[in-house]
Formats: sequence, C-alpha cells, structure tokens
Amino acid sequence: MFNLSKEDIEKIDHMFNEVQNASKTFMGYPCNQDFDYDRLFPFLEYTVNNIGDPYIPTHYRLNSHTLEREVLDFFAGLMHADKDNFWGYVTNGGTEGNMYGLYLARELYPEGIVYHSQDVHYSITKSFRVLRMKNIMIRSQKNGEIDYDDLKETIHIRREVPPIFLLTIGTTMRAAIDNVGKIRSMMEELAITEYYIHCDAALSGMILPFIDNATPFDFAAGADSISVSGHKFIGCPIPCGVVLAKKKNVDKISKFVEYVGTLDTTLTGSRNGISPIFLWYAIKNIGVDGFKKKVSDCLERADYALAELNKLGCNAWKNDFATTVVFDRPSQDIINKWQLAPQGDISHIIIMPSVTKEMIDEFLDDIKNAKNKG
Amino acid sequence: MFNLSKEDIEKIDHMFNEVQNASKTFMGYPCNQDFDYDRLFPFLEYTVNNIGDPYIPTHYRLNSHTLEREVLDFFAGLMHADKDNFWGYVTNGGTEGNMYGLYLARELYPEGIVYHSQDVHYSITKSFRVLRMKNIMIRSQKNGEIDYDDLKETIHIRREVPPIFLLTIGTTMRAAIDNVGKIRSMMEELAITEYYIHCDAALSGMILPFIDNATPFDFAAGADSISVSGHKFIGCPIPCGVVLAKKKNVDKISKFVEYVGTLDTTLTGSRNGISPIFLWYAIKNIGVDGFKKKVSDCLERADYALAELNKLGCNAWKNDFATTVVFDRPSQDIINKWQLAPQGDISHIIIMPSVTKEMIDEFLDDIKNAKNKG
Repeated sequence: MFNLSKEDIEKIDHMFNEVQNASKTFMGYPCNQDFDYDRLFPFLEYTVNNIGDPYIPTHYRLNSHTLEREVLDFFAGLMHADKDNFWGYVTNGGTEGNMYGLYLARELYPEGIVYHSQDVHYSITKSFRVLRMKNIMIRSQKNGEIDYDDLKETIHIRREVPPIFLLTIGTTMRAAIDNVGKIRSMMEELAITEYYIHCDAALSGMILPFIDNATPFDFAAGADSISVSGHKFIGCPIPCGVVLAKKKNVDKISKFVEYVGTLDTTLTGSRNGISPIFLWYAIKNIGVDGFKKKVSDCLERADYALAELNKLGCNAWKNDFATTVVFDRPSQDIINKWQLAPQGDISHIIIMPSVTKEMIDEFLDDIKNAKNKG
Repeated sequence: MFNLSKEDIEKIDHMFNEVQNASKTFMGYPCNQDFDYDRLFPFLEYTVNNIGDPYIPTHYRLNSHTLEREVLDFFAGLMHADKDNFWGYVTNGGTEGNMYGLYLARELYPEGIVYHSQDVHYSITKSFRVLRMKNIMIRSQKNGEIDYDDLKETIHIRREVPPIFLLTIGTTMRAAIDNVGKIRSMMEELAITEYYIHCDAALSGMILPFIDNATPFDFAAGADSISVSGHKFIGCPIPCGVVLAKKKNVDKISKFVEYVGTLDTTLTGSRNGISPIFLWYAIKNIGVDGFKKKVSDCLERADYALAELNKLGCNAWKNDFATTVVFDRPSQDIINKWQLAPQGDISHIIIMPSVTKEMIDEFLDDIKNAKNKG
C-alpha cells in the first residue's frame, strides 16, 4: 500500500522536519530524548498486544509479557517491593498508573478521602472526578512539598475516615518530594492504622533510586503503590510507565475473563506490547550503573544552569535531588522557543540526559539577550 | 548505547521469532496485521506527544495534532457527525474510548443507569466499576444482539431515571449489532427524552460504513458518542482508537490547564503522537474505496469459511455484515495454534484483511484432521 498524494507526502515530511527542529530546543518537559530503539523497529510490523495480566498466560500469543515481567522486576527491585507480594504492569503513562493506584485505594477504602498538595499533577484531579473520590487539597510549602502542618490539622478533624495519600515524588513545576516517612509518623501520632499511600513518582522515581541518601519514597518507606513514567527519565517515543502495587490488594479486585483466558486486572484491555520491549532494551543497555552516571551528570548540569541563571539575575533555585531548575517567568519568545511550561510568575527547565551543556548555553544566551533588550 | 549481553540479544531475537511465527496462525482476534508503516519509523526517534486537546495549540511542539485532526475528520465524516458540533481524540484503544463515552454520559446524567447486553465487552463492566456507575445487564438474543423486549420491560419500571445505553456495534464473540434506531423508537414510545447513547463500535465501526444498507449506528442514527478501534480493521502495531462525541457535551467537562497551555479534555494526559500518524497514513493510503474493497473481500472469505465449516459439520453461522464466523468450540490444540477466543461451547474466527484464503484452508484442514482423529 503506497498511494499517498504529493501533497500528503509533503505534509508528512514537513511534520517530520518540524518534530526534528522542535526537538533541538526542548527543555521545558521531562522527556528524555536520548534513546535509540532502531534495532527494535521490526517488532512494529506485528500486532504485539499485551492484553490482560502480564503474569498469566493468554490465548493471544503475540505478546511481550516475558520482557514486561523483567521490566517490572527491575522496578520492583529499585522500589524495594516485597518479591513475593507485588504486582504491576506497563501502563500508557502516568495518568493510567496514578488512576490505577487511586482505584485500588478506593476499592480498599470506598469512603476514604484523598489528601494531596496544591502541586499535584493536573491529571490527578481529573482522576478524582472520574473515580468519584472525595479529595482535599492541602497547601504546598514554598518549595512545592506538601505542608505537613496543614495536612495534620485537616486529618485531625476527620479521624473517622481512612486517609488516602496521593504523594508526589518530583512535582511537575518544582520537582519537590512529598515525604512518605513523615506521613507514616503522622499516622502513628494520630493513631490511624487504616490508610493508603500512593506515590506519583512519574519523574523522580527514576532519579532518586540512583542518588545516595535521597528522600525514600518506595515500598520499604511505606508506599502501597507507585507509578513511574517510562518516557520521562528513561526516554521512550511512546508515552508509557510502570505501576506497582501490593499483590494482596490487587487480588481483591481481579476478575477472570474467559475471552482472553487471563485475569482482567489491568485498567486498559488491549495494551501496547512495544513499550515493554523498548523499556526492557533501555534497562538492559543502560543498567543501574549507567542510570547512576546519567543522574549524576544531569544534576551537575542542573547546578551549572542554576548558577549561571542566578548570575543573570533570574532568581533561580532548585530542590534537593532535582534536575528541575525554577526561575522567573521569561519572555513569551523564550517560552515558545524552548517549549517551557510556565505557571504564574515562574517557569523551569528540566535537565534530562538529552539536554546538553550546549543547549543550556544557548538558552542562557537567549535569556541574556532578552535581559539586554528589556 | 549498545550494551546487551549475548544472552539478552538471544532473548530479543527469540521473542521476535515467536512473534513472527505466532502471526502466521492468528485468526481469533480482530487485529488486522496487513499494514506497512516502515516509512514512518523515523518518527520513533523523537518524543512525539499529543498531550492535551488536539484542537488547541500547546507549548509542547513535538506533536502530531494536525494529522490527528485529519484522522478525526475522516471518522467524523464516516460517522455523520455534525461538522460544527463534534469533538474527539485518538485514544489508546477501545477501553479508553468507551470509558470516555461513559464518563461523559455520567457527567450529563449523574444518576443515570447504564443498560447493556450480556455480550458487552468485558472491559466495559470494569469501567462501570471504575466510574461507579449503576448498570443493568439485559439479556442477549441468540445472535448476540440486545433483547429489546427485556430492555423495554426493564426501563419501563424505571422511567424516572435517565437511561444511558452502551450499545455494541460488533460484539466480541458474534459481531452482533445493537440497533440504535430501535432504541430511539423505544424512547419515543416510553416518552423518555433524557437519555444518552454510546456506541462501542470497536470492530464494526470500520466495517459497516463500507457496506451498502448496513444497520446504521452513527450520529445521524442517534449516537451521542462513538468509540472505534484503530488497531482492529485498519491495523496498527500500537493499540489505538478514536472516540467522537458531541462538542456541546464535552464543553461541559473541560478544564483549562496552564501547565500545558491547553484544555484538559482527554482522559489520558501524555498521549502517544505516533498512532495518529500511523492512522493518518493508513487512511490516506487506503482511502474510502480501498476500505470498501477490503471489507467486501473479507465478507467474501467469511462466507467461504462459513460454508466450508458447515460442510465439516461445525454448526457454523454468522451475523449479517459480520466477518466473524461462529462455530462449535474446537479442540484445545486448535484453539492454541490459531489463538482462538473460546466462550463456553463456541469459538470464532475473525476474517481480517490479513487473514488469507491460504490461512483459512490450513485452519479447515486442522478442523478436518481433528474430526477424523476424534
């Protein structure tokens, strides 16, 4: 089948050029562009579909469940999940992973109230509405972390309702980290034993495990479920992620479906079988030491950008363990060129493995020139 | 980055061979394997992401929104949507599209009850639970279509509650078509004016529009939203689909999000930008006449398979306008080899453009041999 008009061919070539150009000035979103999956493209000639539970054989044999399970094992290891009591799957991205964690929490505590900070990702508030879950937004501290005093006061007067915590491990604007340990201590103080902690670790879930003494957020620290993105720090052309949860909780909501001969535990039915292969390939190629190096290099470039922005008078700062540098909102030209995400008076750049020192320097030049003009 | 161990390389090559082999005997699921997107693979070197609303410009410039909109226009034309009052997006597949339709219906009629047949796809019942929607399962007729008498009786005693209809246009096992027109007449008879019709047209949504005088199911016929899969009849290596709805309904649930500078109307946040490019490419290459030819060829081969299966005493039959042939459940060996989807006493083959006469003949030989042995 090759039947495109000249106009259509031009359209597709034009889009490719646009994508290629836009990728050169891409620093506002946490999507690492430094990957190479060319060797795996032949898989895209087949309808690989990971429909159903990755741990249970299915009639649909064109799947990549074996590699998907290895990806889940890798994340389970990083997140210190109990080897005999975890379950998970590769999702279409953060929204799905977080919605899955919230869904699990709601099934366990149907009347529970979700507590989260002002800095929670906007897709989370949409999920509350979709899932019909009650939620209370807690003040954020200046650095973007949840305000524990406000949280404690708010829960204190609602001790009869099981709290569900939607914590962010690397917030969207400031890469702040909500502290799982502090939440657990608070629950002990308040003598609350029925609660659920879901960590939205979309970004920092692939950063913190590779930094010594970083704030713990994993199953060992007290999380009940965790969602991490695959297209952010690892890098993947198809948005994807991993959600991990405690198996005993998942077992409560699973349902056997004869049609695919598998347990219908995942949120989506048909699931793309390509992303698990890409993630597996990246993990195997890079390895733990490789990720350590990438994280440390990114932190170094973030420190560099931070120092230089401050030399230019941009009020730049960043959280600990963050590769996100926050600064005064620049001109619209700069926002457009570098595809920055603004919010009120601030904006940020996010240093990913694909954000080179050359790109940072070009960006700094643009800031300097705008200052000189302004 | 190329750092795979010999063992890992073998693993990936082994998986590729398995996928390649499994694709040769693949007739139980409605995933057309006849596609060729090789020319588009270079896009997979970039992080194309269609985050947010396809109709509104975003800061994230690495997107394929322009092609996504053309895909939506194509489907809107096929489904006779009002040009000035439709909205939609390319989804990750049927589950998301149907969940979106149900979500819209629930926001419009928060206390509404969903009515659906026993033959509804299993992912739909999961969505009821996720969305906390009340639902009533209606008997199916023998051919898999909803039983209108049971439906009418059931609604009759609940006339104070707005009905939400989840109709299936091509059921999973029998490719039966619930009749939108009959539902509308029923509403008139019952003098019910507040109701919502969502059509799960995952499979037949790309078949019926290309058959003269097929049962109407589109916006002109009375649908309020429609979900169609992209990886089924069209064929795509990444599960995807299209959901279309009336714009005035969507406007009620949209919310502006500054972070991405766009309206947050889609169910997922980050959205894969590759599937819309693949779908656009297939649509442009094949065109309406091409799809007509493919559908007519598939129907012809389905008739052939049906006749031959009956010669072998398999009690085969099929619905009108269906490429799904239903017959007595065969042996487990045959189910495994051909990756069939069994349900109780029956199973089916689904004739897609990639299911050749040669494959059908090999399958018929297997059935014959099993009969002779048995």
